[in-house]
Amino acid sequence: MSTNRIYNFNAGPATLPLEALEEVRAGMMDFGGMSVLEISHRSKEYEAIQGETRSLVAELMGVPAGYQILFLTGGASLQFAMAPMNLMDKAADYAVTGYWSKKAVAEARLVGEVRTVFSSEEKKFANVPQPSEIKRSDGASYLHITTNNTIYGTQYQELPDPGAAPIVADMSSDILSYKIDVSRLGMIYAGAQKNIGPAGVTLVVIKDELVARKYRELPTMLKYSTHAENNSLFNTPPVFAIYVMRSVLRWIKAKGGVAAIEKTNIEKARILYDAIDASQIYKGYADKGSRSRMNVTFATPTSELADKFVAEAKARGMVGLKGHRALGGIRASIYNAFPIEGIKALVEFMKEFEKKA
Amino acid sequence: MSTNRIYNFNAGPATLPLEALEEVRAGMMDFGGMSVLEISHRSKEYEAIQGETRSLVAELMGVPAGYQILFLTGGASLQFAMAPMNLMDKAADYAVTGYWSKKAVAEARLVGEVRTVFSSEEKKFANVPQPSEIKRSDGASYLHITTNNTIYGTQYQELPDPGAAPIVADMSSDILSYKIDVSRLGMIYAGAQKNIGPAGVTLVVIKDELVARKYRELPTMLKYSTHAENNSLFNTPPVFAIYVMRSVLRWIKAKGGVAAIEKTNIEKARILYDAIDASQIYKGYADKGSRSRMNVTFATPTSELADKFVAEAKARGMVGLKGHRALGGIRASIYNAFPIEGIKALVEFMKEFEKKA
Repeated sequence: MSTNRIYNFNAGPATLPLEALEEVRAGMMDFGGMSVLEISHRSKEYEAIQGETRSLVAELMGVPAGYQILFLTGGASLQFAMAPMNLMDKAADYAVTGYWSKKAVAEARLVGEVRTVFSSEEKKFANVPQPSEIKRSDGASYLHITTNNTIYGTQYQELPDPGAAPIVADMSSDILSYKIDVSRLGMIYAGAQKNIGPAGVTLVVIKDELVARKYRELPTMLKYSTHAENNSLFNTPPVFAIYVMRSVLRWIKAKGGVAAIEKTNIEKARILYDAIDASQIYKGYADKGSRSRMNVTFATPTSELADKFVAEAKARGMVGLKGHRALGGIRASIYNAFPIEGIKALVEFMKEFEKKA
Repeated sequence: MSTNRIYNFNAGPATLPLEALEEVRAGMMDFGGMSVLEISHRSKEYEAIQGETRSLVAELMGVPAGYQILFLTGGASLQFAMAPMNLMDKAADYAVTGYWSKKAVAEARLVGEVRTVFSSEEKKFANVPQPSEIKRSDGASYLHITTNNTIYGTQYQELPDPGAAPIVADMSSDILSYKIDVSRLGMIYAGAQKNIGPAGVTLVVIKDELVARKYRELPTMLKYSTHAENNSLFNTPPVFAIYVMRSVLRWIKAKGGVAAIEKTNIEKARILYDAIDASQIYKGYADKGSRSRMNVTFATPTSELADKFVAEAKARGMVGLKGHRALGGIRASIYNAFPIEGIKALVEFMKEFEKKA
């Protein structure tokens, strides 16, 4: 398939490393006379898969002692509910930086008081806060942030300062794309389908003291403690999605780890933003100080031109460039696995398109 | 891999049809220059996968109009909680026939009053009720049953009579293994990983009037209405698990549908139970009138002999025969995809083993 592989700019599920896909396919049928799709989640074979995946997460993210690494399902959408259900006593602080932050707020409101400690909604979510712009409230159980905003193409350039209450970070769209100091955060969650795997598994990294919180009776499946106490094996885990995640993490490690991935991501984003800034027709959406390295959003003078751009790009083997319906325009999602050659191809096309326009 | 394929008697995740596995592997890398693991859940390609899977469920199960077919995550364990949260006003009836029924009861108790209208716990779950043995209570919102009990190897031979309140059936371990009249049930749920696919997706078939019930505020992800209104696309679905399910359902259809599968299942179970009944050392666990066609449980005179049996069977390429720790002994899980040749091989081994014992 490598010969006819196209450039997939989709926002998620998204492109995966070809090396990981080939490893997945090569191995999937041969687990002692079974496929990985058939092995018991209580088998030694699965134990090895989950154990290695867990170790790779710990190593690549630099997860310190005192944190649990969990493999759940339901994506970030279920975490929007589980986080407040488990972690909120009476109130929590939320920084609102886009569509997904607002979804998180809506679920938290069903549990307790939400205090909006930052919002860029009036600026149409073109920016994210600097650490000093977040005014944390007294008595909040935690501060919730969305580190990267896929629709608007914004990304925290710096994590908020640690405060009295822990930070809970939705990192679905930029996890493992740059080095972070995990000890500054109480909990990180991420649907896998952008930077670390396929749809169907959610990674949660959570501090023991947050796992231990208990403010209300909850269904067993919705308690972090259930999954922490059972090594993510309380119920049957999504075996195959974790198997694929392992191959993606192995690929990150082989590339030189997160530091090396980050370096490439910086270069990929720079090439694309430079092309936007040098152009007369493309206009970046996000404030320059809030630009995302994962989702690059830009507009053309008219929406017709954007449609034409998307269609012509597709004809050249570059798909998924249509901006989200909330914003229109063009969006190039360029997660870890998106190759730099694809960025160069896009930039070349952008220049040609501009000449004709 | 077909040459070194072994007989997998695991209780779930379990053996899948070889034809389905081969179809999955052959197609997985080629979705217009992408892998199925990379396609957007908003793409035409995914729409076709989910649409066909949904149609196959409707056709093979004979789902009448007025029901929704949903693809969720979290397995039966999450349904234990979602069913009462969505469907119970003040009380519900539960028929308790094993370990998983008890788990369902525990989650329902967090929501309201559970009325145990049948229990075989005193008989160590060796039987399930006849329709006349279930005494439904007044004012219950529904009756919950577990149609097949994997650990004890029991299975309803006849579904309960419809009553004033709808029946909610956990069919995780026998869905699509025999013809049922869906209109007799209000809701059916099943983790896919036994009869219809890999771990990572949960099938829910639910009557519109149950979807419409609303007794309390719930997190968005835990409402059936959310998933019904959004065609199971409220959040990113487990794309690959549904893709595999499609191949498994295509296989069932190619085999002649559920009627043909049921006929083979009857024959498979008959061969194995006949061997147990003809033996001097093997003793079936379930009452004869409650025997499961999916999980055949039997004991040997000593637990040491059972261990020896399991080890020797494994050496002959028959794995997963160890009984659940709650019961000990031997368990042969022989779901839809388990081949009749594997039953014959097991029976032959049982006879040889008995001669030596």
